[in-house]
Amino acid sequence: MTSEVRTKAALAQDASTIMNKLTTAQKNAALLRMADALLFEQEAIIAANALDLHNGRENGTTSSMLDRLALTPDRIAAIAEGLKQIVELPDPVGELLEHFDRPNGLKVNKIRVPLGVIGMIYEARPNVTVDAAGLCLKTGNSVVLRGGSAALESNRKIVEVLKAALRLTEMPADAIQLIEDSDRASVNEMLKLNGLLDVVIPRGGASLIRNVVENATVPVIETGAGICHTYVDAGADYNMAAEIAFNAKVQRPSVCNSMETLLLHEQFAKQHLLTLADRFIQAGVELRGCEQAAALIPSMKIASDEDFSTEYSDYILNIHVVPDLDTALAHIRRYSTKHSECIVTENKAHAERFIKEVDAAAVYHNASTRFTDGFEFGFGAEIGISTQKLHARGPMGLPALTSTKYQIYGNGQIRG
Amino acid sequence: MTSEVRTKAALAQDASTIMNKLTTAQKNAALLRMADALLFEQEAIIAANALDLHNGRENGTTSSMLDRLALTPDRIAAIAEGLKQIVELPDPVGELLEHFDRPNGLKVNKIRVPLGVIGMIYEARPNVTVDAAGLCLKTGNSVVLRGGSAALESNRKIVEVLKAALRLTEMPADAIQLIEDSDRASVNEMLKLNGLLDVVIPRGGASLIRNVVENATVPVIETGAGICHTYVDAGADYNMAAEIAFNAKVQRPSVCNSMETLLLHEQFAKQHLLTLADRFIQAGVELRGCEQAAALIPSMKIASDEDFSTEYSDYILNIHVVPDLDTALAHIRRYSTKHSECIVTENKAHAERFIKEVDAAAVYHNASTRFTDGFEFGFGAEIGISTQKLHARGPMGLPALTSTKYQIYGNGQIRG
Repeated sequence: MTSEVRTKAALAQDASTIMNKLTTAQKNAALLRMADALLFEQEAIIAANALDLHNGRENGTTSSMLDRLALTPDRIAAIAEGLKQIVELPDPVGELLEHFDRPNGLKVNKIRVPLGVIGMIYEARPNVTVDAAGLCLKTGNSVVLRGGSAALESNRKIVEVLKAALRLTEMPADAIQLIEDSDRASVNEMLKLNGLLDVVIPRGGASLIRNVVENATVPVIETGAGICHTYVDAGADYNMAAEIAFNAKVQRPSVCNSMETLLLHEQFAKQHLLTLADRFIQAGVELRGCEQAAALIPSMKIASDEDFSTEYSDYILNIHVVPDLDTALAHIRRYSTKHSECIVTENKAHAERFIKEVDAAAVYHNASTRFTDGFEFGFGAEIGISTQKLHARGPMGLPALTSTKYQIYGNGQIRG
Repeated sequence: MTSEVRTKAALAQDASTIMNKLTTAQKNAALLRMADALLFEQEAIIAANALDLHNGRENGTTSSMLDRLALTPDRIAAIAEGLKQIVELPDPVGELLEHFDRPNGLKVNKIRVPLGVIGMIYEARPNVTVDAAGLCLKTGNSVVLRGGSAALESNRKIVEVLKAALRLTEMPADAIQLIEDSDRASVNEMLKLNGLLDVVIPRGGASLIRNVVENATVPVIETGAGICHTYVDAGADYNMAAEIAFNAKVQRPSVCNSMETLLLHEQFAKQHLLTLADRFIQAGVELRGCEQAAALIPSMKIASDEDFSTEYSDYILNIHVVPDLDTALAHIRRYSTKHSECIVTENKAHAERFIKEVDAAAVYHNASTRFTDGFEFGFGAEIGISTQKLHARGPMGLPALTSTKYQIYGNGQIRG
């Protein structure tokens, strides 16, 4: 018997041939219908969500997870508004990327096309169900959604509402598929569906992403992990450095572009570490430091190699004092996950070296790493932040959900 | 003990930090030194190659494999010339792809950067050793080469010569690494080297590529497999259709962009199949056909579902008669590997539908599928033809060997 995963992926693949032919206007009309339907059916969605919340409380789910799972009229309004914002974004599909004429008379166009069918694997966050569907459909792709099982009732109702909305439009309802099988095996089956899924995108914590990367034979866009550094150079402006470092750590510690390790030139550290450390401690940040930092702040725990290798996503910060830029660069090379890295300096040559030599999706001079984000870059809603080097790197706008195709026009050319 | 693969990949990774800083002039100077060294040391290379050929004959290697393995002064000259052609190609690294200013004053550049370290896994073809090294080094990448073990002596000598040449330049010799362990386990170790290899590119036959796709946790660029179709529409010009179909099958049957199945509109088939079939049979092509085709050519074997799913890479051709364009499109959707597909027609609406609806790296109107090739597209030497939709699709020029990086310049911006 064919499994749920294979059956639904095949339906999505069939629908993708229709998706590929839709105009931007047709796709936008469908997204607006989806937004309206979510608002119209919000009571039913909230009722389904209440079941998930009830089950979550029974199962001892943490309050922060319950918070991310919970839907309210305000949150549904925000989710619907997100779809309307996707409508406003330019449609990359059909864009002519290159044109060239060959000496033999062949005319070659390179154009953007949908990827086909995108598999999304994510945690128990019902808002991702709608965001991901909106972004995939806008780019002419079908989507196979596999959200965390703790949100199954919510996702089932949301997808039912979205599919009903699509039946009033020219977009095929089969372009959205929800995998309801909550067994982990359904995820692993998706990861091997070459030929039916064109790409898999994981969105969630480190273990979810690791499982996808280690087991997928379908191409993957890896997102998320961030061990980000801020290096404060000798002679840096204290106020600027303190503001940037504080913002990078404290503004929202749970996200991937927050700072985990602060590297300080020893000259800056001698002058300013006491004041700066006090600011972090006041904000409830636990500090861990190298021996040199701990010599200046005796209350500080010594940071281990494991600390420097950990994405805390929490109010914990490593402080490492270095003698020069080269040592800072070597530390970053060793521990960075190549997400976002920052130098604070007034020395232009140092800024240029850092910007050129650091291998990361986003490298900053005198600005907080917290700006690595689709909205902050002006791309609008994003499907995630790619931490791989292939296909897309950094915040992924709509073009990251497309592929390309060569269209070649001849009049009888053959190869000699 | 650290394995050969891990040790060499780490050396390549270290070298990549220097590669990233080289100018185009420095990289070109290194490639020219490599070309000169190959010519200068050709006798030693041919002597090493003779050992491989001797071993190959002892092991009963087929004559076509021995031919691809063999090096001669002419072939070495051609290989060296290939390096010089890579020197002439524009360097994509450092190219400014986008620039935008954000309302908060952040200035954002998106630039091309090397991928880092590229793993190449290929068959016993010593020319690929040099081609792949040249393309990777030109784009500022280090390369870890794992060629077929039947070419080990040749590859060892070639890489020794190339590394000696690099020692006379500013490019680090460690940027080229050859895996000498001929056990299959060394390939599988490469496929899991996340963090040391940034991408793996397989080049070779279907089973080599399948092994890489199924076992790699490192991102892969899949190349190669091609089940390509040519559809001849009703009313197509006989001569043009016959020339294009014949060229697509016979000009070089062993390559991935050659045709495996010819789809004929029934009207065209009734009028022309006998003449066309005769031309293929004269050229030594074995024909297999659907029932309708076989009714017209009684000598024809009936083509099975497996035949339509096979990349023959040989003088064998399936012929399938269809009642209309939709049936042709459905057949292509089912059996195509999405490499290269062609329609021969004088009907503009049909051409446009075919070009838009067929999901493939290259879609042709009135030209042979044999043009899907880096040289034919004017890209120069290519690392392969990507048959996946992520990152690069179709013939891969130098930009396919690069990633991107956001460089963000601020003056103290923090996120609110």
